[in-house]
Amino acid sequence: MAGLAAGVDLGGTKIQAVVLQERKVAGSNRAETPREGPEAVIGAIAESIRASVEAAGRPLGDLTAVGVGAPGVVGTDGSVSNSPNVPGFETRPVPLADELANQLGGVQVKVDNDVRAAVLGEWKRGAGRSYRDFLGVFVGTGVGGGLVLEGKLRLGHGAAGEIGHTLVKDGGRRCTCGLYGHLEAYAGRAVIEETARKLQAEGRKTRLFRIMERKGRDRVTSSVIADALADHDRVAVELIDEAVWALGIALSNAANLLDLEAIIVGGGLGDRLGKPFVDRVAEAAAPRLHVPERPPRFLTTELGDLSGAVGAAVMVGG
Amino acid sequence: MAGLAAGVDLGGTKIQAVVLQERKVAGSNRAETPREGPEAVIGAIAESIRASVEAAGRPLGDLTAVGVGAPGVVGTDGSVSNSPNVPGFETRPVPLADELANQLGGVQVKVDNDVRAAVLGEWKRGAGRSYRDFLGVFVGTGVGGGLVLEGKLRLGHGAAGEIGHTLVKDGGRRCTCGLYGHLEAYAGRAVIEETARKLQAEGRKTRLFRIMERKGRDRVTSSVIADALADHDRVAVELIDEAVWALGIALSNAANLLDLEAIIVGGGLGDRLGKPFVDRVAEAAAPRLHVPERPPRFLTTELGDLSGAVGAAVMVGG
Repeated sequence: MAGLAAGVDLGGTKIQAVVLQERKVAGSNRAETPREGPEAVIGAIAESIRASVEAAGRPLGDLTAVGVGAPGVVGTDGSVSNSPNVPGFETRPVPLADELANQLGGVQVKVDNDVRAAVLGEWKRGAGRSYRDFLGVFVGTGVGGGLVLEGKLRLGHGAAGEIGHTLVKDGGRRCTCGLYGHLEAYAGRAVIEETARKLQAEGRKTRLFRIMERKGRDRVTSSVIADALADHDRVAVELIDEAVWALGIALSNAANLLDLEAIIVGGGLGDRLGKPFVDRVAEAAAPRLHVPERPPRFLTTELGDLSGAVGAAVMVGG
Repeated sequence: MAGLAAGVDLGGTKIQAVVLQERKVAGSNRAETPREGPEAVIGAIAESIRASVEAAGRPLGDLTAVGVGAPGVVGTDGSVSNSPNVPGFETRPVPLADELANQLGGVQVKVDNDVRAAVLGEWKRGAGRSYRDFLGVFVGTGVGGGLVLEGKLRLGHGAAGEIGHTLVKDGGRRCTCGLYGHLEAYAGRAVIEETARKLQAEGRKTRLFRIMERKGRDRVTSSVIADALADHDRVAVELIDEAVWALGIALSNAANLLDLEAIIVGGGLGDRLGKPFVDRVAEAAAPRLHVPERPPRFLTTELGDLSGAVGAAVMVGG
């Protein structure tokens, strides 16, 4: 049998591993990201890979290559730094590729940016399969993005795709990056939660935090927001209205500049709210398109929260 | 001697023709665009080409190919339609390539979009020579743009590069396209003139229209605006401040999305106001860049108002 490729999506709260066989997910495993520091995180990644190889019904010896999509800055040596949400990876570079290869008996390990991995996953194995020109937008805690142009992942000097930091309102809401009025400041889960807390402190009534507690969460997750919307919670409805408005502006700007075939909307919030949400975003973008008779197709992801892990496996030939 | 290539930039007020020899402008001619209709316009184009061949000191028989950059919609057969500023080309397609070829004794004629021609000119013979990734922005009556990405002109389905219709202020000033708050509604000469007229009607004092009359113009041209700025005319200063602000937003958004090496700012207003203006735009964009330590280079054009005609000649091998 041919060598086995695994892919890992490393996040601030979870580690998602998959094993691909014949271009399909044959096994997967999801684990919480340990809070203790880099050693614990790398150990948990290795463990999650082993569990997904096992789930695929294959011996660990078949594993030949591992791809990892990681947030923050990825060095050419596979080190990861400036990743504020992953314990121990906040500042100085952690040699993730080398240490993970050691733990897994010397398999090939390749690390790349997590958003880029997710775009690759949707492009090669998901909703982007039939397109040569698309933008992938991942609406989660923040808003990440990646471009495929003329059948090639757009890298620039390594920072292309920052749709989350498109200005949608000059002097608007404060973004996680410190600047004001960006898409991420309206559509990213982190700022949505922060804004809901402010509104509550100002006396607005919202069930968002009660739902959060009832679900045993310590953050306003995408599923908490989805429940609040289903409940017609006014604050949640308003905040998601603003997210849709901001996505409509940023995505129509990108479409006008690049004349794209498709826009794929995923990420925690995008996947959770699904097609009705993506359809609303398409409607918000439509009247802003410069060539309205040929709009880009607005699509949900096909791989959902596996986009990143599948793309990471694709990076190493999976 | 090898065959001679000419290039033409067809505009609503002027026709600019050039002849290239050894990649340099060997002859040029500029004429007013006739108001009488398509026949007169095509005749004037042919005449301007003949004059530039003569200026290059070459017999007309050496001319083998002509490229034309035209505003509006260019068909694959070299016809031009939907060009609101060129008399007779406003709606139905005019077979520009065929009729021009007839008038010039059957030379090869190729027609393409004027902005694309200008980007090509700056890329192959101007400020973009050493870049593989740049945005060309032409700030004139409107604001056009074109992208070179990874050493290739970005076409999309034919409408890529519409930086002029980037939203910079939701619900802002009315754009020539009918929508509101676009870059072109702040930086395009047409809306700047319209806004100055409104401000004057509201009682604001401005010398813009007195300067216009003194210069014998019937529109607030780039040189009228330049003179008013030199005069410290308050209205002109404010309107250009807003143009700089809007360019800062739209160009930083594009740079963040695409991670560009350079941005070339030209067009009537860009060329006329020159480096001090482009430097101000760079300063306005800088604090909005997501990776501020590696900003794109902001450059003036090298070919000035010949970008389009030179690029049109390049289209046919000049």
